[in-house]
Amino acid sequence: MSSSRRYILTLSCPDRVGIVAAVSSLIANNNGWISEAHHHSDQIERRFFTRQEILADSLDFPVEELRRRFEPIAAQFKMDWKIQDTSRKTKVVILVSKGGHCLYDLLSRWKSQELAIEIAGVISNHEVFKGLVEWHGIPYFYVPVTPKSKAAACQQMMDHFETVEGNVMVLARYMQILPQEMCDRYSGRIINIHHSFLPSFIGAKPYHQAYARGVKLIGATCHYVTEDLDCGPIIDQDVLRIDHSDSPRDLARCGKDIEKTVLARGLRYHIEDRVMLHKNKTIVFR
Amino acid sequence: MSSSRRYILTLSCPDRVGIVAAVSSLIANNNGWISEAHHHSDQIERRFFTRQEILADSLDFPVEELRRRFEPIAAQFKMDWKIQDTSRKTKVVILVSKGGHCLYDLLSRWKSQELAIEIAGVISNHEVFKGLVEWHGIPYFYVPVTPKSKAAACQQMMDHFETVEGNVMVLARYMQILPQEMCDRYSGRIINIHHSFLPSFIGAKPYHQAYARGVKLIGATCHYVTEDLDCGPIIDQDVLRIDHSDSPRDLARCGKDIEKTVLARGLRYHIEDRVMLHKNKTIVFR
Amino acid sequence: MSSSRRYILTLSCPDRVGIVAAVSSLIANNNGWISEAHHHSDQIERRFFTRQEILADSLDFPVEELRRRFEPIAAQFKMDWKIQDTSRKTKVVILVSKGGHCLYDLLSRWKSQELAIEIAGVISNHEVFKGLVEWHGIPYFYVPVTPKSKAAACQQMMDHFETVEGNVMVLARYMQILPQEMCDRYSGRIINIHHSFLPSFIGAKPYHQAYARGVKLIGATCHYVTEDLDCGPIIDQDVLRIDHSDSPRDLARCGKDIEKTVLARGLRYHIEDRVMLHKNKTIVFR
Amino acid sequence: MSSSRRYILTLSCPDRVGIVAAVSSLIANNNGWISEAHHHSDQIERRFFTRQEILADSLDFPVEELRRRFEPIAAQFKMDWKIQDTSRKTKVVILVSKGGHCLYDLLSRWKSQELAIEIAGVISNHEVFKGLVEWHGIPYFYVPVTPKSKAAACQQMMDHFETVEGNVMVLARYMQILPQEMCDRYSGRIINIHHSFLPSFIGAKPYHQAYARGVKLIGATCHYVTEDLDCGPIIDQDVLRIDHSDSPRDLARCGKDIEKTVLARGLRYHIEDRVMLHKNKTIVFR
Repeated sequence: MSSSRRYILTLSCPDRVGIVAAVSSLIANNNGWISEAHHHSDQIERRFFTRQEILADSLDFPVEELRRRFEPIAAQFKMDWKIQDTSRKTKVVILVSKGGHCLYDLLSRWKSQELAIEIAGVISNHEVFKGLVEWHGIPYFYVPVTPKSKAAACQQMMDHFETVEGNVMVLARYMQILPQEMCDRYSGRIINIHHSFLPSFIGAKPYHQAYARGVKLIGATCHYVTEDLDCGPIIDQDVLRIDHSDSPRDLARCGKDIEKTVLARGLRYHIEDRVMLHKNKTIVFR
Repeated sequence: MSSSRRYILTLSCPDRVGIVAAVSSLIANNNGWISEAHHHSDQIERRFFTRQEILADSLDFPVEELRRRFEPIAAQFKMDWKIQDTSRKTKVVILVSKGGHCLYDLLSRWKSQELAIEIAGVISNHEVFKGLVEWHGIPYFYVPVTPKSKAAACQQMMDHFETVEGNVMVLARYMQILPQEMCDRYSGRIINIHHSFLPSFIGAKPYHQAYARGVKLIGATCHYVTEDLDCGPIIDQDVLRIDHSDSPRDLARCGKDIEKTVLARGLRYHIEDRVMLHKNKTIVFR
Repeated sequence: MSSSRRYILTLSCPDRVGIVAAVSSLIANNNGWISEAHHHSDQIERRFFTRQEILADSLDFPVEELRRRFEPIAAQFKMDWKIQDTSRKTKVVILVSKGGHCLYDLLSRWKSQELAIEIAGVISNHEVFKGLVEWHGIPYFYVPVTPKSKAAACQQMMDHFETVEGNVMVLARYMQILPQEMCDRYSGRIINIHHSFLPSFIGAKPYHQAYARGVKLIGATCHYVTEDLDCGPIIDQDVLRIDHSDSPRDLARCGKDIEKTVLARGLRYHIEDRVMLHKNKTIVFR
Repeated sequence: MSSSRRYILTLSCPDRVGIVAAVSSLIANNNGWISEAHHHSDQIERRFFTRQEILADSLDFPVEELRRRFEPIAAQFKMDWKIQDTSRKTKVVILVSKGGHCLYDLLSRWKSQELAIEIAGVISNHEVFKGLVEWHGIPYFYVPVTPKSKAAACQQMMDHFETVEGNVMVLARYMQILPQEMCDRYSGRIINIHHSFLPSFIGAKPYHQAYARGVKLIGATCHYVTEDLDCGPIIDQDVLRIDHSDSPRDLARCGKDIEKTVLARGLRYHIEDRVMLHKNKTIVFR
């Protein structure tokens, strides 16, 4: 049963008495079976967040009808809400540069169906991974970027993203700063992996920055991209112990292991609708 | 608000449609404000578990009345349940031998009110910590144990526990095996810290066992005591990286850091009613 | 300089005064530049272990001559020793079954030259990864195994290993038990990844065993294969936090992340001659 | 043998051929038994660092004579060096404010002889821990600090430190900024624990800063105090996973566990002469 079709309800609203009662009564009255539920009351913001998985087969009507029946409650409690159907796979477009560790990792997780995604395309400013990606039957879009061509290149990337009907863009160590227009247009839909434990070491060469400061752990941070470089809402982070014997090159090598793991974890949370955004922070219902 | 009085409802029952709806409707209908809620559906056992915190001030009747009103739902869904009042501090009795790191740690957490407990007494088979404990204004019961006196000593310990009206017994590296009678009598109320990553290295001298096997991480496990040595339900665990240069003595030294942390964490989960027992496993709603 | 050619000296001998003085004087007298050195004195076994990296260019004679000049010291101190040349890449043969996460991971590390290995071939009892491996230009040996054909299949595998002149065999979740003959023949040269924190959960279905016991962390162990199943010398281990909500299927999914990381780390230590074996334990000079 | 008296030699010098040969030959020629040795070649700074433990009983002359015999080598290689005798315990002065978790932790480690220190005194701007400290037989110096009295208070603290002949000052969550004069005077001898993963969240209320940024791990950093607030050389760090449900108050509570562990670890490295300073970084020979 654990792998069967589900409807994922996520919502947030001002906190008050009766929200869960209203939501769970509606579901129960329609014979809906809740297989997983998480709640969060932000006591400073006075806002309530919940994510609930309902077994699709337990309802005798389609998801559109569930949405229709949910609308009055949503209106009553002033909810931001959505109901997703797990039978529709998220279309992911991966952006990559010359480093392949995250790309290989995502291909492996997709191929083994560990990640329930469709890789709709890979966009790169280099041709290095064209063969590998196309061998996997995935379209490869080569979009070179020079300081002069940047605006046009970004337009091209957005066109490719739209053409393949991408849902989420994954910057798998893409190494280029995206223009504000793109960040705004796909707000909450672009996921980046930054190779530091943010907010430390924003920007270029974070492993060199970490080496210079003499930290004893290095990190990686998966976050949503906003126009402020490396300042978007954090989805997940992890760290790795290092010591004085590690050169910047060593940090870059061993850091890859957490980069790919944290990126994949963040992406999984995103596609399973486990991440809720509020201001510049995330609620992650693992 | 976060530190105010709460009623903690914990329950488990066979999983079916409508449990959350029934529970949350009852609470909402009485104007109860839920400040924290966790659910778990065990899909193999087909059993549902939940823990909910209700702000005491949001109800205009006492906890006894809440319990009375809850009874019909509990009966309907065949629930194992209880409702605790956070205004009543858990009375903890600590058992200790000659190693003091867990004792110091618990005293510190109690003194700073980090742990909302009352330390009702300390029982020991040695007199080492009598001064320290009594300086803190806590009764110290010296109960020497020899192979011959074991049965009588255990009876004495149970008497002390009953006299001070202890709720939970914490084996803070007590190093003596408790008799079956005691394990049975206080089932689910005796917490031990074992200095290994269970189920590895059960029994005596686990650090020596770990050294002999050449593991690269050592661990500590906080668990409920049952009559099967080191086989009770696990509440929490943690590990620490070691290497070939660490002697058994080094393992014993650095292992203390995780022993005390894991024990304190397990105890906190217990006194905050975050641990639910099912068969030989725990659900821990952190 | 950090990536240039080096000679790696590893040795162990009974501990006594003057070992380091003798070794370092020989190297210094020949103008050898030591770029990295580790020592370990096992005070229980009374044995000394060291690993030293010498910059090849700092000596004006070849590695054979270094070995010749080292012999008298080795004899004097009764050393087990070897001197490896980093310009000769280790030839790795990967054994794989139907799960591809470790295979993808190793291909990625090899392709990006993160791991200084040559993948001489992949052997599998399934044809699943034939296309991927051959696309990478690596020979794929399909050797089906049935209970009846096991002995013949193992002979075939050893033949393939010898034909490609393999130095080390990596069981990347191969899932088949190797016969004693093979374990003996390649003693200290077969590396396995076991999906548990050994010595817990030896044998089949460790994630199910972990689930049944209710542990709060799962692990992975990279070790040398010996004829005793999952009991060989441990090279590296790591763990991952889980909780009651994780099914055995979840454990298997998220455990993959540590399996591939720990395997790759163990393999790197091995090919860089950072692992020294003594009885059933390893010294790992990271 | 592992607990017996040792001489600890630490040195750094420009890297070149022959350093280890010279040092180890001197020790071997005097029949010195090296029980532990670490080397580090900083290939960017071209500087060599080493720490060696020599069993005192293996030499038939006192430590002063060893120092005398070492001088010519030190001069030849332009070494910064010292030789310490483990039979002389480091005198530690602890500075504390109103939070007691680090103080209790250090008292416990000192009392059990886990840390081979003498606690020469505790200085505090509050009287909270006077009773506890004096019960342990340790002098307690109450030095209140107001904005106006700051300079005089600092002079008093230095006087107390000198009177008890302190070797190292430990800021166990002291919460006051030390004046530049004091930082300079005891350079490399004042150890602080900062409750963040530096360089993130420098200065006041780091847990609130961490909460505001929405990080998924919090940290603690043990470092030498310099006049630049929270910017001194890092000795050790650690982190702890948190999530969206943790309030700033929760972070402060659970962060204590890593604060005390990291502080104690850093202090141990310091008193065992495992930390070498170079510019604004540390080499830690664990």
